[in-house]
Amino acid sequence: MALLVQKFGGSSVSDVDAIRRVAQRVAASRAAGDDVAVVVSAMGDTTDDLLDLAGQVSPNGPPERELDMLLTAGERISMALLAMAIQDLGTPARSFTGQQAGMRTDSSHGRARLLDVTPSRVAETLKRGEVAIVAGFQGVSEDEDITTLGRGGSDTTAVALAAALNADVCEIYTDVDGLYTADPRIVPTASRVTRITIEETLEMAAQGAKILHLRAVEYARRFGVPLHVRSSFSDQEGTWILVDRPLTGALHQDGTTRHTSDTTTTEDPMEDPLISGIAHDKSLAKITVVGVPDRPGAAAKVIGAVSTAGVSIDMIVQNVSTSPEGLSDISFTLPEADGTVAVAAVRELQHELGVADVLYTSHVGKLSLIGAGLRSNPAVAQRMFGALAEAGINIEMISTSEIRISVITDQDVLEEAVRAVHRAFRLDSDAEAVVYGGTGR
Amino acid sequence: MALLVQKFGGSSVSDVDAIRRVAQRVAASRAAGDDVAVVVSAMGDTTDDLLDLAGQVSPNGPPERELDMLLTAGERISMALLAMAIQDLGTPARSFTGQQAGMRTDSSHGRARLLDVTPSRVAETLKRGEVAIVAGFQGVSEDEDITTLGRGGSDTTAVALAAALNADVCEIYTDVDGLYTADPRIVPTASRVTRITIEETLEMAAQGAKILHLRAVEYARRFGVPLHVRSSFSDQEGTWILVDRPLTGALHQDGTTRHTSDTTTTEDPMEDPLISGIAHDKSLAKITVVGVPDRPGAAAKVIGAVSTAGVSIDMIVQNVSTSPEGLSDISFTLPEADGTVAVAAVRELQHELGVADVLYTSHVGKLSLIGAGLRSNPAVAQRMFGALAEAGINIEMISTSEIRISVITDQDVLEEAVRAVHRAFRLDSDAEAVVYGGTGR
Repeated sequence: MALLVQKFGGSSVSDVDAIRRVAQRVAASRAAGDDVAVVVSAMGDTTDDLLDLAGQVSPNGPPERELDMLLTAGERISMALLAMAIQDLGTPARSFTGQQAGMRTDSSHGRARLLDVTPSRVAETLKRGEVAIVAGFQGVSEDEDITTLGRGGSDTTAVALAAALNADVCEIYTDVDGLYTADPRIVPTASRVTRITIEETLEMAAQGAKILHLRAVEYARRFGVPLHVRSSFSDQEGTWILVDRPLTGALHQDGTTRHTSDTTTTEDPMEDPLISGIAHDKSLAKITVVGVPDRPGAAAKVIGAVSTAGVSIDMIVQNVSTSPEGLSDISFTLPEADGTVAVAAVRELQHELGVADVLYTSHVGKLSLIGAGLRSNPAVAQRMFGALAEAGINIEMISTSEIRISVITDQDVLEEAVRAVHRAFRLDSDAEAVVYGGTGR
Repeated sequence: MALLVQKFGGSSVSDVDAIRRVAQRVAASRAAGDDVAVVVSAMGDTTDDLLDLAGQVSPNGPPERELDMLLTAGERISMALLAMAIQDLGTPARSFTGQQAGMRTDSSHGRARLLDVTPSRVAETLKRGEVAIVAGFQGVSEDEDITTLGRGGSDTTAVALAAALNADVCEIYTDVDGLYTADPRIVPTASRVTRITIEETLEMAAQGAKILHLRAVEYARRFGVPLHVRSSFSDQEGTWILVDRPLTGALHQDGTTRHTSDTTTTEDPMEDPLISGIAHDKSLAKITVVGVPDRPGAAAKVIGAVSTAGVSIDMIVQNVSTSPEGLSDISFTLPEADGTVAVAAVRELQHELGVADVLYTSHVGKLSLIGAGLRSNPAVAQRMFGALAEAGINIEMISTSEIRISVITDQDVLEEAVRAVHRAFRLDSDAEAVVYGGTGR
């Protein structure tokens, strides 16, 4: 008997039929002997519909506190309906708001951060053998105001709940059956990843893969919560996201082996550089600050100005200074929507810093190759850059981490770039997944 | 400067345009210098839509706790939108759930009773000069579960809030401009009542007049809250419901005379029997228990059985026993929908009590004439019964109180009965309202 947290997103509870299907799945898990806590998002388009109403009544922009009050009605509806549907199958169930589930947050409406998670009522409900259903995405501030965790916050709720309950696994149900080596809409032959480390997942999420919310993955890593991303439309195993090597075994510390795929992978995932997949992000812009004096604090000033303007920076690249004057260029990428604000913030600094120019390019994209041990294996970068060159794709920026190589290209060629790299690493599902031979490390 | 509680029902906030109209009215009240707390129902058909969804996911009937969780999403949406719309006009506003507004109830889901009302957050908001918006119809139990006060509960929320805040008046905004001498859909010439005592209103509400919820009127009477029922579509004065004679003046204890109609009525409303109006209820049934032994406890047993079956009894009539065997008949009316259950409950007792028969008549209606001092004025009953006789309408049962005379008739002739009595008392708006001359009391 295990303790499962099952999270169902909006597309899994889009209408009454979908809710009844989810109810059957939850009831089946319970009938199999597991304790089940469910986290649920608002039904299908509810959030967008409510946002639309908010726009209509407040042409000057809705106040954030009231917007949170409004949007949290969405999960209230879906969770109550799900509890009813589960009870109708004869399985006791009880729904809880974020407040009732002990999701305490700060007061940053619309993007609140969890301060404390004390799901005592949820734990009591599970102890009685009932299913507990928790509203995703929402919490309550120290002032007893209703808050939301921001878009994708239901993933965060699920992982935080799993951590607080010390759940055996947090299952993320979605409309695809796991993480893929690339976006299947762009690379139809992309193959499903059966296991991946949480660090690689973190890079995937940060680099634009849409399936899991970055914050939820960070939370899972921090609190050691094993994730299982799977389809709400089938019983097939999805992708297991493992916290670190020892935890692979910890999943079965009670001696059971419910998850068959666990038995198929006994090798150390960090032994060889293994390509996990390709992530991409289409909606970026790029700013280059030309001729920055090569002295301490210059980069901090540039980045600080952008950050103060409320823009979150994606990737930062600065090369070593090779000019006789000791000047270098700093480039960074950012969400395309924030481009104008960021450029204005940097231009204001132009004189103070004495930089030569500020260049702005909207409409760029980022492709990231993710895999364990990439940096220690130069053949990977070589093959990746080679594949892009063969496809005639110009690389504008490069940035790497231990388990990631990212390149910035023009947005228009990004999809072609994804396909070219995917082919080069033979990630297509009809081919065998390529494992780059270790170089003896 | 006064403290107003303004309650807007579902038809007043049926869509975005309606919400914006309400926002303008609230902002105007605030701009005039009054402190304003608003109680709002769910938008238009929201509650019915949610009930429909609940029925779809739970064919065996939705569990009450989850139904309350579901339905309270309705006010959450309307109150957040209203707060946004008011803020958009430049008037600070803040919405509060029942829980946040301190509406503590018992745990009877779907029909919770208020135990304690401690609106400290609302009071603080008003003190800051902001508009406070409170979700009608909902509260929180001692177990921190979400509860609802039942249909029409938003009126109760408004009156309870007005009592707790010691408001000067509780304004009930609706789609008609006050209480009428009869239902204007049945008597097109019905005239608006400008002032009425709360006791008469209580009888009107109890006898089926739909404008105010009975419980809210009871609450207003108990806590001395003056009510003003008025149209949300005009600025015209509606009907003032006054708590008792001294409170008429108390409305203006601060020396202002904002409400012009107050100056037009200086006579004591209890001086003469004054017909306030006619209420009717179409959906009743009638049970007669024939040949009940005329001994203590017999009636209690009959009524107890029905009550235990969860049926609320309307009017009870038992005449003195005139039969040689000391037997009498007990008749009572009840909601038509509960007829089958009630008859079964009484029939079970038939042998034990030794009653001769249990007669059931569905499809009856009740007409009630309401007015101060009616019982002390036999001319009123005489004229009422005379009018019904002239119209050829058979009276099946009669029941009276100090300020009310009710008759039971066949449902099919009920509307004609209402018109006949309305005419007889010259309540039509083109005629002068009839004041029955006092008989010297």
